[in-house]
Amino acid sequence: MLFSGLFERAEVAEYLGDRALLQAMLDVEVALSRALVELGVAPAEAAEELERVADADGFDLAALGRGAGEQGTPIPALLEELRTRLPDGPAAEHLHRGATSQDIVDTAIMLLVKRASEPLLRDLRAAGDACAGIAEQHRASVMPGRTLLQQATPITFGLKAAGWLAALDAAIGELRRMRRDLALQFGGAVGTLAASGERGIEIGAVLGRELGLALPAMPWHTDRVLPARIASSLAIACGAMGKIARDVVLLSQTEIREAREAGDAAHGGSSAMPHKQNPVGAVAIVACATRAPGLAATILTAMPQEHERGAGGWQAEWEPLLELLRLAASAAAELAELLADLKADAQRMRANIHELVMSESVALALTDALGAAAARSIVRDAGTRSQTENRPFRDVLLEVPDVRGHLSPEQLERALDPAVYLGATDALIDRVLDSWRGKEAK
Amino acid sequence: MLFSGLFERAEVAEYLGDRALLQAMLDVEVALSRALVELGVAPAEAAEELERVADADGFDLAALGRGAGEQGTPIPALLEELRTRLPDGPAAEHLHRGATSQDIVDTAIMLLVKRASEPLLRDLRAAGDACAGIAEQHRASVMPGRTLLQQATPITFGLKAAGWLAALDAAIGELRRMRRDLALQFGGAVGTLAASGERGIEIGAVLGRELGLALPAMPWHTDRVLPARIASSLAIACGAMGKIARDVVLLSQTEIREAREAGDAAHGGSSAMPHKQNPVGAVAIVACATRAPGLAATILTAMPQEHERGAGGWQAEWEPLLELLRLAASAAAELAELLADLKADAQRMRANIHELVMSESVALALTDALGAAAARSIVRDAGTRSQTENRPFRDVLLEVPDVRGHLSPEQLERALDPAVYLGATDALIDRVLDSWRGKEAK
Amino acid sequence: MLFSGLFERAEVAEYLGDRALLQAMLDVEVALSRALVELGVAPAEAAEELERVADADGFDLAALGRGAGEQGTPIPALLEELRTRLPDGPAAEHLHRGATSQDIVDTAIMLLVKRASEPLLRDLRAAGDACAGIAEQHRASVMPGRTLLQQATPITFGLKAAGWLAALDAAIGELRRMRRDLALQFGGAVGTLAASGERGIEIGAVLGRELGLALPAMPWHTDRVLPARIASSLAIACGAMGKIARDVVLLSQTEIREAREAGDAAHGGSSAMPHKQNPVGAVAIVACATRAPGLAATILTAMPQEHERGAGGWQAEWEPLLELLRLAASAAAELAELLADLKADAQRMRANIHELVMSESVALALTDALGAAAARSIVRDAGTRSQTENRPFRDVLLEVPDVRGHLSPEQLERALDPAVYLGATDALIDRVLDSWRGKEAK
Amino acid sequence: MLFSGLFERAEVAEYLGDRALLQAMLDVEVALSRALVELGVAPAEAAEELERVADADGFDLAALGRGAGEQGTPIPALLEELRTRLPDGPAAEHLHRGATSQDIVDTAIMLLVKRASEPLLRDLRAAGDACAGIAEQHRASVMPGRTLLQQATPITFGLKAAGWLAALDAAIGELRRMRRDLALQFGGAVGTLAASGERGIEIGAVLGRELGLALPAMPWHTDRVLPARIASSLAIACGAMGKIARDVVLLSQTEIREAREAGDAAHGGSSAMPHKQNPVGAVAIVACATRAPGLAATILTAMPQEHERGAGGWQAEWEPLLELLRLAASAAAELAELLADLKADAQRMRANIHELVMSESVALALTDALGAAAARSIVRDAGTRSQTENRPFRDVLLEVPDVRGHLSPEQLERALDPAVYLGATDALIDRVLDSWRGKEAK
Repeated sequence: MLFSGLFERAEVAEYLGDRALLQAMLDVEVALSRALVELGVAPAEAAEELERVADADGFDLAALGRGAGEQGTPIPALLEELRTRLPDGPAAEHLHRGATSQDIVDTAIMLLVKRASEPLLRDLRAAGDACAGIAEQHRASVMPGRTLLQQATPITFGLKAAGWLAALDAAIGELRRMRRDLALQFGGAVGTLAASGERGIEIGAVLGRELGLALPAMPWHTDRVLPARIASSLAIACGAMGKIARDVVLLSQTEIREAREAGDAAHGGSSAMPHKQNPVGAVAIVACATRAPGLAATILTAMPQEHERGAGGWQAEWEPLLELLRLAASAAAELAELLADLKADAQRMRANIHELVMSESVALALTDALGAAAARSIVRDAGTRSQTENRPFRDVLLEVPDVRGHLSPEQLERALDPAVYLGATDALIDRVLDSWRGKEAK
Repeated sequence: MLFSGLFERAEVAEYLGDRALLQAMLDVEVALSRALVELGVAPAEAAEELERVADADGFDLAALGRGAGEQGTPIPALLEELRTRLPDGPAAEHLHRGATSQDIVDTAIMLLVKRASEPLLRDLRAAGDACAGIAEQHRASVMPGRTLLQQATPITFGLKAAGWLAALDAAIGELRRMRRDLALQFGGAVGTLAASGERGIEIGAVLGRELGLALPAMPWHTDRVLPARIASSLAIACGAMGKIARDVVLLSQTEIREAREAGDAAHGGSSAMPHKQNPVGAVAIVACATRAPGLAATILTAMPQEHERGAGGWQAEWEPLLELLRLAASAAAELAELLADLKADAQRMRANIHELVMSESVALALTDALGAAAARSIVRDAGTRSQTENRPFRDVLLEVPDVRGHLSPEQLERALDPAVYLGATDALIDRVLDSWRGKEAK
Repeated sequence: MLFSGLFERAEVAEYLGDRALLQAMLDVEVALSRALVELGVAPAEAAEELERVADADGFDLAALGRGAGEQGTPIPALLEELRTRLPDGPAAEHLHRGATSQDIVDTAIMLLVKRASEPLLRDLRAAGDACAGIAEQHRASVMPGRTLLQQATPITFGLKAAGWLAALDAAIGELRRMRRDLALQFGGAVGTLAASGERGIEIGAVLGRELGLALPAMPWHTDRVLPARIASSLAIACGAMGKIARDVVLLSQTEIREAREAGDAAHGGSSAMPHKQNPVGAVAIVACATRAPGLAATILTAMPQEHERGAGGWQAEWEPLLELLRLAASAAAELAELLADLKADAQRMRANIHELVMSESVALALTDALGAAAARSIVRDAGTRSQTENRPFRDVLLEVPDVRGHLSPEQLERALDPAVYLGATDALIDRVLDSWRGKEAK
Repeated sequence: MLFSGLFERAEVAEYLGDRALLQAMLDVEVALSRALVELGVAPAEAAEELERVADADGFDLAALGRGAGEQGTPIPALLEELRTRLPDGPAAEHLHRGATSQDIVDTAIMLLVKRASEPLLRDLRAAGDACAGIAEQHRASVMPGRTLLQQATPITFGLKAAGWLAALDAAIGELRRMRRDLALQFGGAVGTLAASGERGIEIGAVLGRELGLALPAMPWHTDRVLPARIASSLAIACGAMGKIARDVVLLSQTEIREAREAGDAAHGGSSAMPHKQNPVGAVAIVACATRAPGLAATILTAMPQEHERGAGGWQAEWEPLLELLRLAASAAAELAELLADLKADAQRMRANIHELVMSESVALALTDALGAAAARSIVRDAGTRSQTENRPFRDVLLEVPDVRGHLSPEQLERALDPAVYLGATDALIDRVLDSWRGKEAK
């Protein structure tokens, strides 16, 4: 909780805390009774009575937690608690019928994934829309392209934002696909549905409908592809966000200052040093992205589970999966906010461009006349002189006979203009925006 | 190489070794010249001459490797080598035009993924077919269901195999989707295609067609969702295989022996101890599954790459991605072989069932007459007596008045028969097989 | 909390929860004022007044957590809160003097590591003592040695326990060394101690003494070897415990039953199936061991932190480090309990030994007379016949002329006795026990 | 090999390749025969004959690799090969006596760790010495301290280098401790040394002496604390190096240029853009540091190995452990080179300092007169005005009555001088250097 501003922003705790998980477990038990009622296995009171007591607020979480230590999951203790609250009768009689603890725990976690991924996707879409806005607005804001953190040829800030958007777009696609495939767990002790009599699969089908989860071909007690896909999708989303955040941190450097998070002394600012604007939001996102892979690896590591219920692997999934969800959702909330209000400084971007990044452009302008090798060699020499003599590149170039001979002053000026040497930048931005808007339209 | 029998089975080395990677790099350069030719940017000889010298066998891999230390990738050294082999003329002039080293490295790795995932998918499908065969053949081979490695209620070996198949099916789905999305990298120095003049995107489109890779909305130099998806899909496949292999190891235990790998003294056998049949193949697969998550985590960790080219993250991807591919492909080859020839012992399975696993079934048979709680209590007492007095469960049950009063001998026999207490097993197997065959039919 | 019985046993929450962390932060601020007082920088009231308000119970954790989102750590919000509670005067004036937020967060986490590693080490020692007890008690309890889960030559349960002990011993050694090296963080904004005037290093020295932490050569704001060592030591301890727990799970299998956790229906038992005794404790430990590596990897991943304060890496350490501590401490508590009361069944161990595991021993007995190759070949043939004809190995051997010719009945009996073919088992147990006791004596 | 310049610099391949591993395996077998000879178990020829054929160059690595697929390790195939090369006689008769495959594989890997960690430690020490040199030489080279990549109060480049050194020092300490604890593996099939007759422990003792490895209390076939410690130490070293490399990358940014790798067009330079100097070495080191944690996590994950030999976990260790060694050694070679020749630009460092970083210093200078709160407030206002009016901080300060009233021009100048506001920088550098030299002296 002490670090919740970085790793568990407001809504997230509500969707993902212990209380939310317990409520999801109760929701599964209630939905099961409803399914039994619907199929005529249990009388209507079985569900009604259970619904009445199935409110997470009434339970002692710590006691259930201790129960998990005794029985391996909190479900037996939860059922016992529920039975003390239920009258003798159909609800008690049909409670949990045909289910095993793993059915409840797995399905409850799937419910949490379903519920928490809604605000997560909403925030990711908002972040994407913010990128789209930047891509449009800064379509022509020329800035240094940087490879290995060295200035290379120019780009525009719009293109950079389009790149951020393309990654978010792909990450959202993964999450949506994952969300669509979220499935019910219902198999009984060993996955045969033996304790459900003849109607196990039917019960599962109704249960899935009740909870909004797909009915899998068979129980997935030890087929952990689904949790692994969830974990991977979340970690990929964290990575895509981490890239944007890292760029923001780098652009915010005192020496560069091409962008910074909105904020005042109360947000990321330093009361002592007014020039400082700590990229607090971006740093929190980078931290989430740094933590996600280890958690995803844990879920992947836990996949080879023994026989019909894992002895360690399954249990190892629970907290890391919820933690991943928490980090992804928290980072997305942070990112949407950060991007919506990012302060970009187009003048500074332009001013930061090192004149020598245009050497490729000048060489290209000379290639037709001189051939590629000679053109490169001439420009390289001029660049080196510009560096060693500490004189403007343009001035040095103008002294070179081959340059003067083959390029008019206007042509040279053009070759030295970063705003001209942008290749397909505009078209690429359009392609990304079209793809984004096409999907959003659906 | 010393461990290649476990981690790099025959074909894999061919698809994934250094030579294969270099050839893929050369293939990209050739395809680029072809695209330039097709679009009229370069004359036909540009491609023809290059093709003539673009054979990986002629290159000194170690020298290129050293070059990578100087320039950050092996591409500059490779281009230099190529230039020494090309005549002065169009091929040399247009070599690598518009591309940056990252374009070649990324695209070449995508080609390797494409190429190596073919045998990988073939082997996974073969493994799936073997599971489907087992599911049919052992549909009724009753065996103990085991949760936390304790015998619980019965299943059939067919159901276990169907569970394996369901996971493979899902993993294959992931890999296919990933494969479909494999994309070209082509953006030039900073992703603007500036050095390609007007026709950058067109060139990319032809290049993608030449190589059988999708044209992305824009270059993904620092949008690493694609490598992360590849890594996740591969690690998920390893996890699904690891689960099967772990089950095989457990079923092969000397004390259990319900299944074992085919083999003789020369494969997994012990010359000294003829009773031993080491599950060598399964162990290799478990090892691959143990290694995959760390590699996938590395790719995920590397996602937040700086600006227009990552300074460390990108480079960190190369070997782990290829290593993951190697492990997944090797494990799949091993698994297909192992499952095709798995020796299952249905008699042993039946004999291993502990009689007390039927107590749930007996209690259920008594529930209508006695209510769930009383039925459970009676059966539990009988079970405990059977354990402490070391007498058959059936005999003890027959002494219990409530049992004799409510169950005929035939009913009791039926309640004690594992082959009867299988719930929806058959239907679940059908569901999985239908899903598998439905996909294969496509 | 819902899973606390598995991952956060009683004491752990107390040492590691948010309240404990906040108290540690307050303790650091108090110790800093005390140091300032001791060195005459501040008057005595500066510390006294602060102590009066520095009780974690009075603070709103959620508000501090929100503050962390604004400023990157909860410290600014905490200081503000403290200032509202302090009278105008020396305590307020000297509060936090010379320190930076990272000084407080890092040092507070070191304090938690110090505090929580005490019960952790106590429990690990208790587990070690329990292993030592088993090693003595079951020194001669012969059981199958198992490689790749196949029975190989015999061992004793005492040797297995000695192996467990050796690993715990080494893991404890690592933790102790780590604990001894726990160091203070105190460097001010950028590690120069500039805001502490002339006496920065002296203040640090007193602060370290106050808190029982070493004074490092210089601040380690972005030298993260210490957190990485802590994480590694904890993960190694989890791995060593996981090995023991995995063995317990395997020995507890229904078909093997050589050991099981003490327990009744209320602990790991199944009310429905009295033969079941779920290895709940061992499973929880395996789950902890499965989760630790991903967390350790996160801390290692976060090491390359930027310049004088990490922008994401540092923040990524906080929760995973505390989580690792929680998992290790919880697993150790569980393990000490589990081992203290482990039910080992020496008769079952002896009975489970497959007679063919003695073939190596018989071959060795024949080697002097026949040479190694011939001896092995004869025994292998006999073993194979024993298997295929389903007859006792002894009977088959007795029919072999070379066996009868070279081994008297007593010699054969001896060669077939697992209790005799134990090599250096006894001496090895002694070596491990001596090493353990030698260290404990210190 | 194509990436060897980044991940496998010259010597490393020699120490760590397949050939080196095979030679180590052969060395273990030879040392075992020598031990048998020394203890009179075997005649002198047993060792002599074996030595004659135990040269890795004569073996077909691919065939041994295939053998590993059949038997789970390459050792059976290797022994078979050796037997075809040995005359009938004592060497063949005593070959591998008492050992199991795991003994050879584990011990051979320990030998590689021992051998490869020599150049690794040498290079790390060289890197440390280079840091020490920089710390001395740039003891007074003032530069911006940077937190979250924002300029904070000043440091010197010497202090930064001292911080690098402190981390290397600690990492070297870990590696040395690890190296000292490298232990022999010798236990026979299940760790009892049963096949070695009476003298198993003695043989182990001699074997350890022969190979320069410690004799452990008992075999560690499934006690994997040692591999986990090795992996952790190596990953920690990679992390410490990664921090230095990341700093170098950041300092090399076009906009900052306070340091850069030595190099020319042939090393990291761009022929097209003479202003670019790609930090190729630093990038390679960051890449190694990015890859190490996943590999270390794999080794940690593999720790819980079953019974007397792991079924998957053990096998999973082999390649990742060697890979970690390769990455660490390669990074160290790179780092030693990079630091020995790092081009630092002290003028640029000084010039890059943003004047407002001195606000803390000015506020401190005013605190005695005005109290901390008022001093901070005055300076903050001046700083804000300096920013908004775009005027020098000094000029604005001079207009503030409280500043003029309490600070003489000389005092203000002093408060604004970064070279003065360095706190304990000098003493801290000395502390680190003393610690380093103290250890080196030993």
